[in-house]
Amino acid sequence: MSSETKKRLRIVLVQPRNPLNIGAAARAMYNFGFEDLWLVDPWEKAFREAKSAMGAAKVLQNARVTSSFAEALGDASLVAATSAAKGRSTDLVQKELTTAGHAIRTHLEDRPVAILFGPEKYGLSREDLSHCDWLLEIPTNPDCPSMNLGQAVALVCYEIARHARAIPRLKTPASVSAQERDRILGLLLPLLSDSGFIFDGSEEAQTHKVRRWITRLRLAPADSQLLMAMLRQLRWKFDHDGD
Amino acid sequence: MSSETKKRLRIVLVQPRNPLNIGAAARAMYNFGFEDLWLVDPWEKAFREAKSAMGAAKVLQNARVTSSFAEALGDASLVAATSAAKGRSTDLVQKELTTAGHAIRTHLEDRPVAILFGPEKYGLSREDLSHCDWLLEIPTNPDCPSMNLGQAVALVCYEIARHARAIPRLKTPASVSAQERDRILGLLLPLLSDSGFIFDGSEEAQTHKVRRWITRLRLAPADSQLLMAMLRQLRWKFDHDGD
Repeated sequence: MSSETKKRLRIVLVQPRNPLNIGAAARAMYNFGFEDLWLVDPWEKAFREAKSAMGAAKVLQNARVTSSFAEALGDASLVAATSAAKGRSTDLVQKELTTAGHAIRTHLEDRPVAILFGPEKYGLSREDLSHCDWLLEIPTNPDCPSMNLGQAVALVCYEIARHARAIPRLKTPASVSAQERDRILGLLLPLLSDSGFIFDGSEEAQTHKVRRWITRLRLAPADSQLLMAMLRQLRWKFDHDGD
Repeated sequence: MSSETKKRLRIVLVQPRNPLNIGAAARAMYNFGFEDLWLVDPWEKAFREAKSAMGAAKVLQNARVTSSFAEALGDASLVAATSAAKGRSTDLVQKELTTAGHAIRTHLEDRPVAILFGPEKYGLSREDLSHCDWLLEIPTNPDCPSMNLGQAVALVCYEIARHARAIPRLKTPASVSAQERDRILGLLLPLLSDSGFIFDGSEEAQTHKVRRWITRLRLAPADSQLLMAMLRQLRWKFDHDGD
């Protein structure tokens, strides 16, 4: 997602009351490369405190304050409200955040989007919601649906900024050659014989078992070298005991 | 994702210092239905304050405190560290959170997973990282990569709890728990000391190297047992040499 595209996303906090939440929302926006923060009727003291906090992000310094929803929403052609409450009676189009992210990304490619977050205690009012096209539902636990404001902003920014999901590739990791495994066995098997792990009559079965073990480990080259270094040192100790 | 599955996820905060962050992490866990919170060496005052805060979630009341990584990681057979820093030099498997969530969900279906979050200022140390299999990268803005702790926990919980998409299941191969790996080290390290592989002055570096080696092997349970049997026999030989 280009930075031009990211500039088309506006985050609107409606009547936030807690300076820490305002600061956390601004930082999360900056974490994911979004910059356009508006506050509608914030508790003034909270906004002052948030702005003066050490390390307040540049996003917060540039935040705009208004009493007008129309101004806060600007020229957004898609306005989404966030809510953790499921099944709320509304005529808004309801979308789960997990599936709406892609649609919002697509919209942002050539048109602005605004996302509204309600006040900490009460959430968005029916009047606030009347400005919105979509209700974005964050799929929280019904026992504890309501999220912290700063965390909700972080989730929405993350979801919109996330890379398009590709099917993960399965890699087979590099592992050492059969020859290298034989060199390991050449060190390990004599140690196991000397220590009695491999004993008369068990050679064939135990050797097979240990060889399979080494094969299954699928040692990376560096891991194989470390194992050989340990085995050589154990060998040295065996040979020099009693010196 | 069933609640039984969710119980297999453990969130581990390493040396958290800010009570608000501890509280926010616990609340985010509860928002997404996760319950198992551990703290390694928290700043004690911060933990007390967080627990006594109004509305501290049940998750926080049940949180466990320890000084032992082995205890905090418990029987997790996949341990992931979180980091916003890209390109950090490490031999951990690096995964973007956006693509790792599905693999973690699959693993949780029958095996426990622990996710580590570092202290607010410094992140996880090299020593902390030596316990981990994966480094989970949160795809943040390079200009402002470091996330607030509570928000990072919220993102990870959200990503893991999100509804499964129709992509192929990724199997993470069965491997032994962190506790079992500690038992192996308990046998191997003394042998390496006795043989001179670990010598005065090299303990820390060599122990770190060997611990990482064991972690990378991702031993299956039967392979771990075979390794321990071999190590016990080598131990017996060391102790009885000269008899």
